[in-house]
Amino acid sequence: MWNLSLRERVLIYLAERGAITNSLKITTPIISKQFGTSQQSASRLLIILEREGLIERRVVGRTSYVKMTQKGVSRLLDLYLALKMIFEKPVKIVLEGRVFSGYGEGSYYMSLPGYVQQMIEKLGFIPYPGTLNVLLLSKDSIENKLFLQKNADIEVSGFKDERRTYGSVKAIKVLINESEPAVMVFPERTLYDSSVAELVAPENLRNKLGLSDGSLVRISATLSPKMFYEGFKPSMSLTFSPS
Amino acid sequence: MWNLSLRERVLIYLAERGAITNSLKITTPIISKQFGTSQQSASRLLIILEREGLIERRVVGRTSYVKMTQKGVSRLLDLYLALKMIFEKPVKIVLEGRVFSGYGEGSYYMSLPGYVQQMIEKLGFIPYPGTLNVLLLSKDSIENKLFLQKNADIEVSGFKDERRTYGSVKAIKVLINESEPAVMVFPERTLYDSSVAELVAPENLRNKLGLSDGSLVRISATLSPKMFYEGFKPSMSLTFSPS
Repeated sequence: MWNLSLRERVLIYLAERGAITNSLKITTPIISKQFGTSQQSASRLLIILEREGLIERRVVGRTSYVKMTQKGVSRLLDLYLALKMIFEKPVKIVLEGRVFSGYGEGSYYMSLPGYVQQMIEKLGFIPYPGTLNVLLLSKDSIENKLFLQKNADIEVSGFKDERRTYGSVKAIKVLINESEPAVMVFPERTLYDSSVAELVAPENLRNKLGLSDGSLVRISATLSPKMFYEGFKPSMSLTFSPS
Repeated sequence: MWNLSLRERVLIYLAERGAITNSLKITTPIISKQFGTSQQSASRLLIILEREGLIERRVVGRTSYVKMTQKGVSRLLDLYLALKMIFEKPVKIVLEGRVFSGYGEGSYYMSLPGYVQQMIEKLGFIPYPGTLNVLLLSKDSIENKLFLQKNADIEVSGFKDERRTYGSVKAIKVLINESEPAVMVFPERTLYDSSVAELVAPENLRNKLGLSDGSLVRISATLSPKMFYEGFKPSMSLTFSPS
């Protein structure tokens, strides 16, 4: 499945079947079928795992009774704890770019009551009528913007007035230059492509942070591990299929 | 460190340093030093990881800027979630053995007020004056008994009367034949070796369960993942040392 080395895959296979605390009955045909190897390779693999002290084996005819040793369990546990430190801590996503003057449509939309009223409710502040536009500098930043977009958890619905319809907007809370709270917005319809970040805040960010066209800004968001997982939905089943 | 295949070790190394969300500056000497390979192998390894779609690389002179791809992150995440299912669920420890008649010392100790009073407090019942002795049948069961002993979380202190001193006893809650609550005791001093399990309960277990010498019994305990971890304390450091 994951192209993990065969050794770890077999250890995980055994652990999932209870070989941490009890001897598991196993035959080389089972192993070779499960892992798509020859029976010879399967047999050799068990011998290697035994020789390395990762499993204990009792061989009775063509059947082996296999139990993981403390060393074998510790290896998987070490691996688990290292991965846990990677995947269970909040993930900081950083984007960098330069301020530029947009088409002014931000100030138009940010003054429409149909948006403003919802933003007050959902963001907890009255948005300054205008967006700060940031041209992202690198492929990493653009990818991170798309990642934040997938994870944007605030939804402002579209609406209709006598003249036209207005699209929905997704949004996510960010910090600018590590200190200034703002919201990155992802309008369903926008004149900009994915290399532009559009920011909304209670105040005029240009004035407050002393920014002008060309100023470098750093936008960051901290995602919970759970949000982060969902951005990387595992594509395959999590366990081996039962044999 | 764990003899994980080099591929996963490098992926974990990169993830720990933030290459999930940002490009990481890396050189083949750094990789080869970190993983104890030749520079040629290190270079080849990065090429393989790139070819398999697990990392993206930009090469500038001798420096690579490396970022994990979604596929690379998914691989580690799949691995993490599989291990989490193994290590975060309660672990059932099972011992099997046959009832035998002991030396009768259990009934002596279980009637000493110095033990009885503490047991009432710590176990929540008045122990029947006598232990059920079970001769464990397999190496697995004996190992599991030692594992439970390490994890026994109830402590009955030793004491002294006018004649002699009495040792402390550790204990852990178990089920007999999947239904009957009992406590497995581990006296500091005992006449039995590690192949014998000694059980205490509010009632006479022989009568209640219709057991006689030679009857097969199944003793089980369910440990929390945390208790389980501690029984397998990882021997090595959990992260790579900083280079």
